[in-house]
Amino acid sequence: MRDAIPPNAKMVFKGKIFEVWQWEQKMFDGSTSVFERLRRPNTAQVVAVVGDKILLQTQQQPDKMIPFPSLPGGRFEGFDEDPLEAAKREFLEETGYVSNDWILWKKENPVGKIEWTVYTFIARNCRKQQEPQLDAGEKITTRLIDFEEFLMLSENPSFYERELFVSLFKARFSPEAKAELKKLLFGE
Amino acid sequence: MRDAIPPNAKMVFKGKIFEVWQWEQKMFDGSTSVFERLRRPNTAQVVAVVGDKILLQTQQQPDKMIPFPSLPGGRFEGFDEDPLEAAKREFLEETGYVSNDWILWKKENPVGKIEWTVYTFIARNCRKQQEPQLDAGEKITTRLIDFEEFLMLSENPSFYERELFVSLFKARFSPEAKAELKKLLFGE
Repeated sequence: MRDAIPPNAKMVFKGKIFEVWQWEQKMFDGSTSVFERLRRPNTAQVVAVVGDKILLQTQQQPDKMIPFPSLPGGRFEGFDEDPLEAAKREFLEETGYVSNDWILWKKENPVGKIEWTVYTFIARNCRKQQEPQLDAGEKITTRLIDFEEFLMLSENPSFYERELFVSLFKARFSPEAKAELKKLLFGE
Repeated sequence: MRDAIPPNAKMVFKGKIFEVWQWEQKMFDGSTSVFERLRRPNTAQVVAVVGDKILLQTQQQPDKMIPFPSLPGGRFEGFDEDPLEAAKREFLEETGYVSNDWILWKKENPVGKIEWTVYTFIARNCRKQQEPQLDAGEKITTRLIDFEEFLMLSENPSFYERELFVSLFKARFSPEAKAELKKLLFGE
């Protein structure tokens, strides 16, 4: 992991989402300095395939009323939830869809100084099982987009799932990468 | 700004780098919930042009002994330092180089829930003025790479300046984008 909290660190604050950890770090010249790092629950995001389409959400949050596009997903419950279970749970709650064909596509620590992993799953052959169960902090609508529109999310400054950008760009500009991504999402 | 801390928020913890802020947020159903967001000093990174090359650092940190490539730059001193002044200061300290030709290239809030802006500057026509002044937490070497190697940093999982990836990818795959970026860096 890129920025794991070392074993000698102590938690100095525990917030609603973030924990703050500090430790005495030995520097290159032998002196010491207090270093600081955060921990937050991991998150999952889901590229959900429905037929030959991909499921995209439009989301508003209570403190961000301007709608923005997003993938289904969310925060793990605490620090011990299994990544796939968390992804399935958030996906079902937000969309009402299920899948029996899950692939872990990417696993990334997106930002320095924070112990936080973002899991990106692909859920193939999704089917709708129930209505979404949104909580009071969620206002989400769902629509299906085609593969080309999915790739063009890499041009949208309000699409925050940066972990996907490299794959989307490669697929846009390299025919081989495009065929590979299509196969990954839609199978043969 | 993507995730600004609202005016009614209160700071509940102040660490060495991060501050934790909380507020009562009205939810979509009229209930309220405590929301949390962080603030940290902004950072600047510099794409420095020296002749027809670009300056790349290899960096070690006291708690990350595996060297990784990085652009010069660093953290602002507090929350009020001017972005260009901060970039010039960090650039001079880490590399010993100066420039009279600065462009603000990108300004981005890289991560949700954190009030934090990353400024990416281009410094053209750089020249060496003095030896680097590294502090006890820095172990940095500097080398000059050519434009093609610069673009290929977008394939390096240890290159963390993700704000550049879209531009690097476009320049790799689109001749027009490549010509544009070359002009931006090296002039006519």
